[in-house]
Amino acid sequence: MNITIVGVGLIGGSVAITLKEKKAVSNIIGVDKSDANLKKALQLGFIDEGATLSDAISRSDVIFLTTPVDATLQLLPSILNQVTKQVVVDMGSTKERILQAIANHPKRGRLVAAHPMAGTEYSGPEAAISGLFKGKMMVYVDAMHSDEDAFDTVDAITEQLEMNTTFMNAHEHDVHTAYVSHISHITSFALALTVLEKEKAQGRIFELAGSGFESTVRLAKSSPDMWTPIFKQNRENVLEVLQEHIKQLQTVQQALTNEDYDTFYKLIKKSNKIRRILK
Amino acid sequence: MNITIVGVGLIGGSVAITLKEKKAVSNIIGVDKSDANLKKALQLGFIDEGATLSDAISRSDVIFLTTPVDATLQLLPSILNQVTKQVVVDMGSTKERILQAIANHPKRGRLVAAHPMAGTEYSGPEAAISGLFKGKMMVYVDAMHSDEDAFDTVDAITEQLEMNTTFMNAHEHDVHTAYVSHISHITSFALALTVLEKEKAQGRIFELAGSGFESTVRLAKSSPDMWTPIFKQNRENVLEVLQEHIKQLQTVQQALTNEDYDTFYKLIKKSNKIRRILK
Repeated sequence: MNITIVGVGLIGGSVAITLKEKKAVSNIIGVDKSDANLKKALQLGFIDEGATLSDAISRSDVIFLTTPVDATLQLLPSILNQVTKQVVVDMGSTKERILQAIANHPKRGRLVAAHPMAGTEYSGPEAAISGLFKGKMMVYVDAMHSDEDAFDTVDAITEQLEMNTTFMNAHEHDVHTAYVSHISHITSFALALTVLEKEKAQGRIFELAGSGFESTVRLAKSSPDMWTPIFKQNRENVLEVLQEHIKQLQTVQQALTNEDYDTFYKLIKKSNKIRRILK
Repeated sequence: MNITIVGVGLIGGSVAITLKEKKAVSNIIGVDKSDANLKKALQLGFIDEGATLSDAISRSDVIFLTTPVDATLQLLPSILNQVTKQVVVDMGSTKERILQAIANHPKRGRLVAAHPMAGTEYSGPEAAISGLFKGKMMVYVDAMHSDEDAFDTVDAITEQLEMNTTFMNAHEHDVHTAYVSHISHITSFALALTVLEKEKAQGRIFELAGSGFESTVRLAKSSPDMWTPIFKQNRENVLEVLQEHIKQLQTVQQALTNEDYDTFYKLIKKSNKIRRILK
C-alpha cells in the first residue's frame, strides 16, 4: 500500500511513523505547504519522499488529510476531483462544515471522515510520535456516506494504529468535541492569560508552577494556526459550551462571594462525579 | 529522629514514606481523627504506631501538621502549647490566616511554615507515594519568625525530600497559590460540572474523553473536605483571580461571538507565552 500524508505534522507524522513500524505501507509521500516541514519529515524518516499534491494523489492508494481544518475545507473538493479509486481520510477535529461542503461531490464515497481523539499540545513534524493513537478512540463520522471498500481500508488502518472505534453523525461529533476537547483548550488559554497578566504585575509566579497548574494549563501551548480554524468551524457549539462553563464558574464564584461553604462543598462533591467518566 | 505525622493522608504519608526510605527517622507516630486512616497507614507500613496527639508530641522531635487547613487552624495553638523544644512543621496550602492566629504565641519560633508545591488529585493514606516531592518546590513562609535551629531541622528534611526551596511572606504565598494552584482547581470543578450537565441531557460524552480533556479536568477528582477549607481561608485572593479568569474567558467569548478571528488568534498566541513558565 502506498500512502500520502497531506500535512506532515503531529497527527500525519504519527500515522506515518506507526504504519512504518508495522510495515503496513510500502511508500509514504509527504505533501506540505511548508518546504521546511517536508525536509524535516524526510530527515526524521517518516516520509520516503516529498511531492506535489496532484502527483502524490496519482501514485497513492490512501491519502491522509491531516492539515489544519481551514486547509482541509479548501483542499478536499479538489482532492476528490482528482481521485478515481483512491481512499481519502479526513482526520480533522471538526466535521460538519467540511462534510457539508462536499456532500454532493460525485466522489463523496471515496472519503472516510475519521477523527482520532489523540494529540498533544505540540505541533509540527518534530511533534510526531509512535504510539500516539494506541488505546485511543477513532470516531467515524457519517460513515454511511463512505463506500464500503473505502471504509474497510481505513478501518484496517485504524486497527494497525491500535485504536478503539465509535460512530457518530457530523453534528453529534462537533457538539461532543466542543465539550471534551475544544472547551478544555479555551479554559487553558484563559488560565494562561490570567496568570501571565498577574505575572506581568508581580513576577515570580513561575517558581510555584506545581503539577496541578501544569496539567490544567498545558493546552495553552497549542498552536493558534491549528486551533483558530477549529473554533471558527465549530463556533456555535463552542459558544454554547463556553456560556455554560462561564455560568458554572459564576455559580462557584457566587458561593464563595456569599461565603456559602455548604454550596461550595456540594459543587466540588458533584464535580467529583467526573471520576465516573475518567479512568 | 522521632517524628509525628498529624493527618496520615497524601502529604503526610508521602513525607513518612520518603523519610523511611532514606532511613532518616527512627520512629514515626501517626495521629489522625480517623481510626480507619490510622489502621490503613499502619498496614501500609509508613507509620510505626498510632497515638493520641499529646502523647505523640511528647515523644517526638518533629511534628508534621498535614491535615486539611481548617483542622490546622484549630489544632496549631494547642500543639504549640504542648511543645518545649520540638519543631512543628505546618505543610498546609494556605498560610496567612493560620500564621495570624499564632503570631503572638510564646512558642511561635518552634513553628516552621512550609508548603510543598506537590500533590495529586487523590487523598487519604492510600494516595501517599514515594518521590512525590522530588524536584518540586518547598515554599518557606515567614521563615524569619522561626527559631534558627527549628528552620535548620526542617531544611535538612526538605533536602532529604530532594526539593528545591524558595522564601515568601504569608500574603505573597497566598496570592501566588491562588494563581497557580487554587484557580486551576476551580477551573477543573467548573469544567467537570459543565460536561456532567451536558452528559445528563445527551449521554455518550465519556467515549470521547481524550487526553486534553483528562488533564484539564483531573483536578475535579479532588476532595471537597480538603479543598473547601482552602478556599474559605484564601477566599479574597481566589475571588480576585476568579474574576480575572472569568474576564479572560469573556474576552475569548467576545472574539468568537464577533467572529473576530484576528483577535482570537492573538489571544491564543499570547497564551502560548506560558511556555516560558512551564517546562
